[in-house]
Formats: sequence, C-alpha cells, structure tokens
Amino acid sequence: MQLAMIGDKIVPMGDLEPVYFDRGIYFGDGVYEVLRSYGGKIFAIEEHLQRFADNLAAIEITAIDIDQIRSRVQKAFDAAGISNAKIYFHITRGSAPRNHVCDDNLEPNFFLTVTELPDDTEAKTKGIAVSTYPDWRWKRCDIKSLNVLPNVLARLEAAKKGCDEAILVDEAGLITEGAGSAFFAIFGRTLQTAPLTANILPSITRKFAVEAGKNIGLEVIEKSLTQQQAGCAEELFIAVTTKDIVPVVKFDGKLVGDDKPGKYTKLLIQEFRSFTQ
Amino acid sequence: MQLAMIGDKIVPMGDLEPVYFDRGIYFGDGVYEVLRSYGGKIFAIEEHLQRFADNLAAIEITAIDIDQIRSRVQKAFDAAGISNAKIYFHITRGSAPRNHVCDDNLEPNFFLTVTELPDDTEAKTKGIAVSTYPDWRWKRCDIKSLNVLPNVLARLEAAKKGCDEAILVDEAGLITEGAGSAFFAIFGRTLQTAPLTANILPSITRKFAVEAGKNIGLEVIEKSLTQQQAGCAEELFIAVTTKDIVPVVKFDGKLVGDDKPGKYTKLLIQEFRSFTQ
Repeated sequence: MQLAMIGDKIVPMGDLEPVYFDRGIYFGDGVYEVLRSYGGKIFAIEEHLQRFADNLAAIEITAIDIDQIRSRVQKAFDAAGISNAKIYFHITRGSAPRNHVCDDNLEPNFFLTVTELPDDTEAKTKGIAVSTYPDWRWKRCDIKSLNVLPNVLARLEAAKKGCDEAILVDEAGLITEGAGSAFFAIFGRTLQTAPLTANILPSITRKFAVEAGKNIGLEVIEKSLTQQQAGCAEELFIAVTTKDIVPVVKFDGKLVGDDKPGKYTKLLIQEFRSFTQ
Repeated sequence: MQLAMIGDKIVPMGDLEPVYFDRGIYFGDGVYEVLRSYGGKIFAIEEHLQRFADNLAAIEITAIDIDQIRSRVQKAFDAAGISNAKIYFHITRGSAPRNHVCDDNLEPNFFLTVTELPDDTEAKTKGIAVSTYPDWRWKRCDIKSLNVLPNVLARLEAAKKGCDEAILVDEAGLITEGAGSAFFAIFGRTLQTAPLTANILPSITRKFAVEAGKNIGLEVIEKSLTQQQAGCAEELFIAVTTKDIVPVVKFDGKLVGDDKPGKYTKLLIQEFRSFTQ
C-alpha cells in the first residue's frame, strides 16, 4: 500500500490533501509576488501583476488569467480591511505525486495571505545594518521563483550578526542585490545600483527608487558596485516592497557616512511617499 | 483581519493547517532524500542517512535525530509492504508565517512517501535518450535541497524533445550532471565522470557505479566532460537511485555507439545487481 508519513504518523496516500503534493514544496516549482498597501490603497498593483505574468511565462506555467488574480488580490485585501497590509501570493504548477515531469493539464495552485505590516518607523529613521554574503543563487534571479534557500541562508547569517539584510556578492566580487531587496549607493549627487541582468530581480521598488532619485535631481548610474566601493559610499540604502526605502547605516560592521540616514536618502523617502499617497 | 486565500476561497489565517506555512513551500527551505528497495530490502540506507545528516548540517537545520529518521523510514517501508519501493522524504525548517528569518526553536517538518517503483526493464534494456540544457542551478548543488526548479525546467524541456533526462552544461561548456542523475561516459576501458565539487551532488548511486566500474576492470577518471566529448563517447549512461544504471543511447539527437546499450554498461548493470542482492 502506498503511504505517506507526516512526522511520526502514517497516512494512506489517498487521505492526503493536495497541498502535501504541491510541486511548490517538492521543487519550488512556482513564482510569487509581494505587494503592500499604504493607507488602504494597494501600491503598484499593475506593475506587480505584469511581473507575475512575466514570471509565470518564464517557467511555463500557462493559462493563468491575470484578471482573475487581480480580482482575488482585491477581494482578499478588501475582506482583510487592513490599512497597511502585506499581500503575499504564489502560484505553483500544481499538485501531483513527486516527479520532475508532470502532465501539461495539471491545475496550478493559488495561495495568498494578507497580513498587517509591522511599523517601520525605527528602520526608516535610524537605518539598518547589513552584512555581505556570497551570492549562491541560481542563474535566473530575474525570475521571482520559490527557490529562495540561498536568500534564506544569507539572511539567517546576517541576523546572527545583528543585521537586517544580507547583501549578496557574486564570484567576481560584485554586489548583485540584497537577499530580499535592491541595493543602492550614493556618491556625491550620483545614485548607483546594479543593472537589470539575469542575476538581478527587476524590483518594482527599485524602479520607483530610481524615479524618485531623478525627481530629486540625482544622476542615476546602473553599474555594479564592488564590496569595497559600497563600503566607501556616502550613503547606502535598500529598496523593498514592504518598507520602500530603508537607509543603511552600517555595512559589514563599518559605519556609513556619519551613522545616520543620509540627506539624499531622507529626501528619497519623502519623494517615495508622494508616489504612495 | 489577517487571512489567507486558497484558490478562490478566503480562509481565516488561524484556520490554516501548518503545512500551508511550511518554509518548504515558501523558500524550499529543506533537504530531501530518495531511497529505493530491491526485493524487499532498502538499499544503502546508511549512505543516504549520512548524506541527509550532512545536508541538514549544511543548511543549519539542527537537533534532528538521525536514528529517529532511520526508524521512521523502516516503519513506513514495513507498513507499505512494497517490494520494489521508492522512499522519498524531506525535512523543512518548519512552519511559520512567511519571513526569511525565523525562530531558532521552530520545529522542523518531516514528510515521507513510499510508492511503488514502475518497471524499468525497457529503460535498462533499450536505453534512453537525453538532451543538454544550461545548468542554471545554484552554487551549492552538493546540497540536496528543495530548490529544484532549474532541474524541473531542464527535465520539462527534455521531455518535450522525447528525452528521459536532461544533462546540465555549465557556462564553461562542461557537463556537470543530469537534472536528477549522475552522468558517465566510457572511452575504451576508461569510465569518466565529473569530480565531486560544489556544483555536483555526491550521488550514492554514482559511488556504487564507480565501484562497479573498478570491479569490472575499468579505469575511473573523475574529470568533467565537454558536451562535444560526451557526444563522441563509445558508451554513455546515467546513475540514479530509483533505476541505478540506465544506458544512454541518444545524446542531443545523436546516436551513442550503435544505438544499443554498450557492453560495459551492460556489465555494470549486472555488477550493480550484485550490490543489491
């Protein structure tokens, strides 16, 4: 008799819910999105849905109706009634006994959560510490897939050092991005971040941060930074959906600028606020 | 109110089973093993358990009692009563609301299935076709983690071409291994396979295939093959837990040898049988 075991409990295979056969858990065979709302309004939903559609196409999960996803997101958000909400959702290729190859007609699984965002005032006003970690991720980081173990390992290591984010460094010694954020440096009136290549996630918040940078008169350069260059920047910050722009005041244990959020970073936070109102 | 949505259905967060919060699905934050039995006896269980312990340590999932895992595997296998069984199991870091960082004291999740292996006579007697695919995997393929999307994508592409396995080729044009197998070539009396580095899984079946090769008088060389070299081999085969040694008779559409399993590969299959009896 084919069977499963959950912890110490033996269960006949037929009694298991489809979630136990989700290709998300066996292979990470799916893609995800994280959105947030500001004051009761979801921010940049179309950009996130477009990226999600691109990611589904990239891993060939087909026949997903993005309009249906949009209405599910809106419905769940409305039902939750949370003003500053984090909306997470993923689609996996579906549920089936574990086998790399599966039927084309497998029905994809959709899963979403709406949770309350914690207050981010402290991170934004005091800034955060970050530490570097080798970029062990796969070669298609432009796809926001459920294969995120290298990011988790980097973040766990950062947390041990009292850091809130890990900044990933590739084999050539170049910074790609944060484990869960885009990474920016400011030198004079120049805002620098890595260009969008196959090893960079096309972050929505990055796009708005670049726009905010231009709006406040910074010159934007898309060029990878070395670890050393980042350590000498006048200002550093990360950009992430859930907290938009967060100043970095410590980089690998070394103070950035004068250990306080930099003046341009503060202006960028302010400018970003204008997008979300 | 914090909530979740499964398909079209809204569910209060508190009503969800822990499996929906499994870090396995959010991040692929876990490691797995596949064992098989031959004629009612589990093969190489100690080697698999040792590798599993190494993998748990590599991703810092701690406090797992390997003796307990051994007895769970044996208990489930006995309960299933399947002679030629495939035993799959994984451990994830545990269940918690999605956040890269989690509590140290999270309880890991154990999940196992015992299923019947399909008859592999045809693959072993006729051989299989394989096709190459870029190796997009992460930089720690020596860890058997749940981040297996690149392997899935390679296999799906291979299946479209009527191939049973995808052979992964790195950026330098060197073959690493199969999406779910070790890869071997035979030239004269030499058996060649890639050395065990960070981009190769230390396959148990590979180890036994190497031993079988020595037993039948082949010289074993651990050196990476280029795609072109593999295309010129006299014999090719893959090694995988569920089917041990499987002859490859077509490589990227080109016949290998005379389109039939080679003489040494057949001897290796025979020799391998002696390990499993």
